[in-house]
Amino acid sequence: MKARFEALKERFAEIADLQAASAVLQWDQETYMPPGGGASRADALATLQKAAHERLVADETSRLLDEAETWARDRGPDSFEAGFLRAARRDQSRAKKLPGELVAELAKAASVALEAWREARTRSDFSLFAPHLDKIVGLLRRKAEALAVGERLYDSLLDEYEPDMRTSQVESAFRSLREGLVPIVKQIVSRQDRVSNAVLCGACGEKSQFKLCQEVVRCLGYDFDRGRQDLSAHAFTQPFSTDDVRITTRIKKDFLPASLYASIHECGHALYAQGIDKAFNRAPLNDGASLGVHESQSRLWENVVGRSRVFCAWLLPLLQKRFPKRFSGLGGEEFYRAVNKAGPSLIRVEADEVTYNLHVLLRFELEADMIEGRLKVCDAPQAWNAKMADYLGITPPDHAQGILQDIHWAAGLVGYFPTYTLGNILSVQFYEKARRDIPGLEGGIAQGDFAPLRNWLGKNIHRHGRKYTPNELLERILGGGLDSRPFLDYLRAKYSEIYGFNRRVSGILTS
Amino acid sequence: MKARFEALKERFAEIADLQAASAVLQWDQETYMPPGGGASRADALATLQKAAHERLVADETSRLLDEAETWARDRGPDSFEAGFLRAARRDQSRAKKLPGELVAELAKAASVALEAWREARTRSDFSLFAPHLDKIVGLLRRKAEALAVGERLYDSLLDEYEPDMRTSQVESAFRSLREGLVPIVKQIVSRQDRVSNAVLCGACGEKSQFKLCQEVVRCLGYDFDRGRQDLSAHAFTQPFSTDDVRITTRIKKDFLPASLYASIHECGHALYAQGIDKAFNRAPLNDGASLGVHESQSRLWENVVGRSRVFCAWLLPLLQKRFPKRFSGLGGEEFYRAVNKAGPSLIRVEADEVTYNLHVLLRFELEADMIEGRLKVCDAPQAWNAKMADYLGITPPDHAQGILQDIHWAAGLVGYFPTYTLGNILSVQFYEKARRDIPGLEGGIAQGDFAPLRNWLGKNIHRHGRKYTPNELLERILGGGLDSRPFLDYLRAKYSEIYGFNRRVSGILTS
Repeated sequence: MKARFEALKERFAEIADLQAASAVLQWDQETYMPPGGGASRADALATLQKAAHERLVADETSRLLDEAETWARDRGPDSFEAGFLRAARRDQSRAKKLPGELVAELAKAASVALEAWREARTRSDFSLFAPHLDKIVGLLRRKAEALAVGERLYDSLLDEYEPDMRTSQVESAFRSLREGLVPIVKQIVSRQDRVSNAVLCGACGEKSQFKLCQEVVRCLGYDFDRGRQDLSAHAFTQPFSTDDVRITTRIKKDFLPASLYASIHECGHALYAQGIDKAFNRAPLNDGASLGVHESQSRLWENVVGRSRVFCAWLLPLLQKRFPKRFSGLGGEEFYRAVNKAGPSLIRVEADEVTYNLHVLLRFELEADMIEGRLKVCDAPQAWNAKMADYLGITPPDHAQGILQDIHWAAGLVGYFPTYTLGNILSVQFYEKARRDIPGLEGGIAQGDFAPLRNWLGKNIHRHGRKYTPNELLERILGGGLDSRPFLDYLRAKYSEIYGFNRRVSGILTS
Repeated sequence: MKARFEALKERFAEIADLQAASAVLQWDQETYMPPGGGASRADALATLQKAAHERLVADETSRLLDEAETWARDRGPDSFEAGFLRAARRDQSRAKKLPGELVAELAKAASVALEAWREARTRSDFSLFAPHLDKIVGLLRRKAEALAVGERLYDSLLDEYEPDMRTSQVESAFRSLREGLVPIVKQIVSRQDRVSNAVLCGACGEKSQFKLCQEVVRCLGYDFDRGRQDLSAHAFTQPFSTDDVRITTRIKKDFLPASLYASIHECGHALYAQGIDKAFNRAPLNDGASLGVHESQSRLWENVVGRSRVFCAWLLPLLQKRFPKRFSGLGGEEFYRAVNKAGPSLIRVEADEVTYNLHVLLRFELEADMIEGRLKVCDAPQAWNAKMADYLGITPPDHAQGILQDIHWAAGLVGYFPTYTLGNILSVQFYEKARRDIPGLEGGIAQGDFAPLRNWLGKNIHRHGRKYTPNELLERILGGGLDSRPFLDYLRAKYSEIYGFNRRVSGILTS
């Protein structure tokens, strides 16, 4: 039977190879590809995707899965083999449920919609995008029906990014989050003059910024022998295997924190990808447990660690060394407050760690309503603006800075947004547990000793890759599941101190 | 029937996509891949190659080829369809003749041999490499037998790189070449003190060198919107499509001509690849007619143009602008003589345009003798040194600088070397024809006007890609075939003037 499993492994290894090749082509597209290369790149990517899909849904693959099933499960629930089989089954089952013509139609609709969206955003004219979004929502409803996961249409889409998570769980977690967040934001809004980040604004040489970013991620533990950092329009992490995990950043000449915190964020993703058990290479287990768990790693390093007082104490001297003229007079406390300036803003990707989640909530509510038929596409802009006013107290001056700002819906990515906030919630749950497990954690961070935290994450999360479901992983680490209270407590404690308000906002006592 | 042809086209388009993906992965491997990425990259490349091979030899492909054959041929000998069918047939026929296990065994043997070769070269110990070369020669003999092209074993291997060229033709061309070259080399050797390139030696900043290279290839017509230049250990050109053709160069800090002429060489390849008819993208026609024809383009720009008096007149001011301290006192004639310094040397890739071909001749003779059983692998080092003494009058001090210097044999590339010299021969045949066709060609070059030559090459060679066989292409352009006399005449005229000897060396009158 081991031989059958080896044959199954080889089959999925080829699928993984084709996916790795796609990843290289995508990375190149975002970093070094010349303008003329786009058309042939799209062709090559489509063919690679098709070749991988064909292998995944082939009868031979089903036969090998059936033959290896019992033997693999008998290796035990913590075994590579059992985890492999579960993940391989899940991938194949989802792929087989989707009719080929629906997949092709969605890809084509998204390709057209992306063009329309760019045009619509440039002109700030939602009507140019509306028919395309309408088409995509319709196709995604068909996709959700075909997948038939859970009881609600949105469940099927959410499950793609967050396995076994249900819409009702997200609603419940986000409801408590919203109730906790809105009062905190109100306190911050009423004290906007208490915190300034003016000291961080101003020209910093791009090469020096890039060198600083590389120095910082190297200190955090990113392994440049098994990866590299480049520039791209939007920062991202792209793993080809555990031994080649690329990160990028973007540089804003006049605002150093942009490149710096984007680098720390991607480094968090990359430590996960570099930390997966090498034995999982070329297997469906070489991935994160879910997008939410992945985001928990990037957010943990970017915000929970990266914007903490102890981290700032370590970071400031590095800045002062690279940019002595700009930062030599800056004090530690001033720096800490500046990187934590919060407040309502229009653009999600520029939002602080408090308001960010309200941007996500709004998107989740709108997209679930559209998919499940409670909101018409033509009514979405009004709904967007109403929620912006309700949650953040601001109204976008135009749709480009409102409903047209994100690429996700045009690309057919619905069910994806909630994972950002699930990651934020989990980041604090994980960090609190690590702090309990590691004596002197924060004293070490202040000295630049990140190994204890990185090793804790490696041992508890990274090395397991996709071997456990997100729920199994949370249960193993936390003895429980998703809980938004620690995240809210963290925000209340941190921002009540920075902005000088009472923790007991809106009548909820912190723990 | 057009529909059948379209189905055939789509099938080969997928094969081309998989090959393009391989090309991206190889380019990345040589430019940006971190050290850790090697193992998974090898896996991904093997899977891509396998997927392309499966599609190529599939029964469905044969059926489509059969069905489209008559219709395609009826489009006429100059048609896209007829050329497509011929190229596709040739690719499939060669692929089907090779047993899968032989291909796999060769790939494995080469992989092991490459490791052994590196070690052997480092230690300058041929005995470490000999058993691997013996194995590879044995497998290549089996490959040649399976392909069964021509009357001699070497024919099958040569045909892979130079379609329809036979060993006897190469022997005949190389015989006249040797007879012409050896006396020229002797004249040059006896006048070594007449030419010095000392003025070109000395530190030049690497960034400035790279900028100069980019400036020069841009002037020659390389389109940076459809390509880019990077650094790598060995310079190469890698096309992904006609609209994304990458080139690299290597920089020697103390010898500017290294990066500069490598860039011009690769630019020659790249102008070919960028100049192929865009309609040939994703078809088997999107390639050069042969390696020899490809090399003719790189050598034409590197040597025939790039080391000409008129080109040097245009180039020197660019050098003086970038490196005023080093080159401001250099005169045009001194510069021309310096870039044309010739003489026997040990290493092929560093050889001048005269002696280079003797390096190639030697390799061709040895590899043909080994494949056809006239030379044992264990006797090859002695044969190498004897020929070096015979042709160039020097003896390698060790095997690292002798028989172990090139990667080709370890990689299983036999039949490849002759194409370098075929390219040199053709470069002069093409250039002479272009000079007859283009009035004032060289006056234009002296002014930096490369468009007339580039357009001539584009119209006569580049745009046709692989639509014609090499013989058809030569017949169309030259009204004849390969002829080494113009190349010898070119060398005699040029070097007799530079080194001050009589053109009538060894009794052969120049034309």
